Amino acid sequence: MKIELEAIAFVKNSRKELIDDNWSSIESEIELTENIFTEAFEGIENFSHLVIIFFMNKVKDEKAIAQYRHPRNNESLPKLGTYAQRNKNRPNKLGLTTVELLERNARILKVKNLDAIDGTPILDIKPVMKQFEPKGEIKQPEWTNEILKNYWKTK
Amino acid sequence: MKIELEAIAFVKNSRKELIDDNWSSIESEIELTENIFTEAFEGIENFSHLVIIFFMNKVKDEKAIAQYRHPRNNESLPKLGTYAQRNKNRPNKLGLTTVELLERNARILKVKNLDAIDGTPILDIKPVMKQFEPKGEIKQPEWTNEILKNYWKTK
Repeated sequence: MKIELEAIAFVKNSRKELIDDNWSSIESEIELTENIFTEAFEGIENFSHLVIIFFMNKVKDEKAIAQYRHPRNNESLPKLGTYAQRNKNRPNKLGLTTVELLERNARILKVKNLDAIDGTPILDIKPVMKQFEPKGEIKQPEWTNEILKNYWKTK
Repeated sequence: MKIELEAIAFVKNSRKELIDDNWSSIESEIELTENIFTEAFEGIENFSHLVIIFFMNKVKDEKAIAQYRHPRNNESLPKLGTYAQRNKNRPNKLGLTTVELLERNARILKVKNLDAIDGTPILDIKPVMKQFEPKGEIKQPEWTNEILKNYWKTK
């Protein structure tokens, strides 16, 4: 079964290349595509955070497959499957991030903490509601802290 | 630009019809499709929560468009655009939910709080890491509490 989707918006920011870390330095604009009317954003300005689902179109097709490897190829970390990681080389090339909404201006959102490069197509935007936050305590393995230590750090 | 994706897993559960509320009563199984190897789940059992991106294939194409309307057609609530809501009638028909991982059994995950009906195709699974949780306080408008009051309630 093939599933066909279309961009509803695009990312504009200063990061033109695939770099792994220091995403909090980047502010981004999200602009609706021509086929989506402006009213689609009506009321979004009353939320502090949004979840963005985007298509990482710069990932090469031959890397967009299920994997079993050391995160960031660091052999001191355990070997892991695709779905125990959040790295970009994965089937369907979907990215997913919670951002802070700084400003809405008609068809354009200004956001912080979007880890997508300039020109990335966006497939969906959902407002963050506490009712959809994780229920109960979050547990995660220690290696996640190691690989994410510079992820959001400003340069 | 058309973006072509493929299911990487399917949902199995007891909910066969589109019903809005009472999702915490439902336990689901997520089974990888044949083309994804079992190692793709290796290490996932060390996380307590997962984010599931799914394709709401039962939504009719004519409803999968940008909208500007009262949530659940309740006129006492403000009129809102698609991207200020999380309802299922939206371009690209993507669903997004954080679930609790109860058990991993080779190619099958048992999860709680997945608000997707039986047979729903899954496009991606990402482990929840605290570093990707919303930064700063979450603010959301009052109407969200009204429409979600029975969403997770067990029957």
